[in-house]
Amino acid sequence: MKQRYFIHLSYKGTAYHGWQIQPNGISVQELLMKAFSTILRYPIDIAGAGRTDAGVHAKLMVAHIDLNEALEDVAAFIFKLNGLLPNDISVQKMLTVKANAHARFDAYSRTYDYFLISKKNPFLQDLAARVYNYLDFESMNKVAKCLLEYTDFTSFSKSNTAVKTNNCTVTQAQWVKHDDVWVFTIQANRFLRNMVRAIVGTLLQVGRGQMTEEEFRAVIEAKDRTKAGTSAPAEGLYLVNIDYPSELFL
Amino acid sequence: MKQRYFIHLSYKGTAYHGWQIQPNGISVQELLMKAFSTILRYPIDIAGAGRTDAGVHAKLMVAHIDLNEALEDVAAFIFKLNGLLPNDISVQKMLTVKANAHARFDAYSRTYDYFLISKKNPFLQDLAARVYNYLDFESMNKVAKCLLEYTDFTSFSKSNTAVKTNNCTVTQAQWVKHDDVWVFTIQANRFLRNMVRAIVGTLLQVGRGQMTEEEFRAVIEAKDRTKAGTSAPAEGLYLVNIDYPSELFL
Repeated sequence: MKQRYFIHLSYKGTAYHGWQIQPNGISVQELLMKAFSTILRYPIDIAGAGRTDAGVHAKLMVAHIDLNEALEDVAAFIFKLNGLLPNDISVQKMLTVKANAHARFDAYSRTYDYFLISKKNPFLQDLAARVYNYLDFESMNKVAKCLLEYTDFTSFSKSNTAVKTNNCTVTQAQWVKHDDVWVFTIQANRFLRNMVRAIVGTLLQVGRGQMTEEEFRAVIEAKDRTKAGTSAPAEGLYLVNIDYPSELFL
Repeated sequence: MKQRYFIHLSYKGTAYHGWQIQPNGISVQELLMKAFSTILRYPIDIAGAGRTDAGVHAKLMVAHIDLNEALEDVAAFIFKLNGLLPNDISVQKMLTVKANAHARFDAYSRTYDYFLISKKNPFLQDLAARVYNYLDFESMNKVAKCLLEYTDFTSFSKSNTAVKTNNCTVTQAQWVKHDDVWVFTIQANRFLRNMVRAIVGTLLQVGRGQMTEEEFRAVIEAKDRTKAGTSAPAEGLYLVNIDYPSELFL
């Protein structure tokens, strides 16, 4: 009997053209589908909770998949899967869910981290964005809190995307320092394409003293992408969490 | 007037044949010397605090260097240096020291970390050793404490090295879990070649239930390298600290 699973996986995005299958580059979704098909010997379709762009990482991505029958030994299956997948993609868990549970539509909250370093760090190559100017993180933190007061984030969205609305509810937005790394954590019910990197890029202007809180608010209120700062580089961005209602899980 | 400096640097060792210059591979020391010579336009000699083997990392390596004259702007010099060095090598500091201060002979204590993971981790590729068996870390920790009671570590040394004695004073040896990573930290006045990896390899036998504390003590007391376990892989090992008497610094 068919069984739907939620797959928990993580990946270092450096080598990939993002999560989503596409004609001109290797994607995480494609390698994952191939690994499943190789073991199961039937074609497999996998639906992710969302996209990540080229070079963006995931500490936790969730995707759903339908298997022709439930697995007898999930741990052994995951071990095989990880043996087939390259070193920069790792499956952690496979959880049985209801037949209509959807990795994308049932997610009620997503969380991203953005890693910023000011000093060269051999261990964070491709894993953090580097800044060369002094940044006023206190101001960046203060201004970031504005994000919780707005819902229309058109100014931080890639233009011409097919979404119905640009409304998001941001529930967390703050910078915290961990050792030598400044980490921006942002949580919302949903994110628009390019949104986190556009927000970080604009907050960097605040940190450099090039934008005040008032001007930051004006950017949001303008509902115009050209008012915001340039996107921060992909290498600093991590999808770190996705939340689902517990009743989806068996 | 000539001025001696202590250089603080870090590197990801994956791409290198270790710290020390050698004919058949690229070393960190060689690239560092080249970067200095390129900026200063005279040949430079650099003496490291010790060697690290191929694939071993350093969060802190110290080396000394004599410049023909003191630098006017150390921060600007380090910035240039880091621009010339590859992404996996980073100079953090250059400290003026007395003319006879020696990075190797004046160090009174060194500290190494060894990173062990049991789950595949895309972000620790080449940066931790992976184990596939269950390990009893409580036993490994208990047995590791024995190391503080001995001084002759011939059993954990590469044979045929040119050192006068195999005596070391171990001042710290413990496993601590940080998130998904087990970290073994060992501190001693000096280390023999291959010593940390041989100790970790032997402690892994303890963790798998293949060696008791009594047997571990017998290995040390045998003063015979063939009695110890195989060396743990280079990729898990980090040089993390080196201590010097404060009177060396100007």
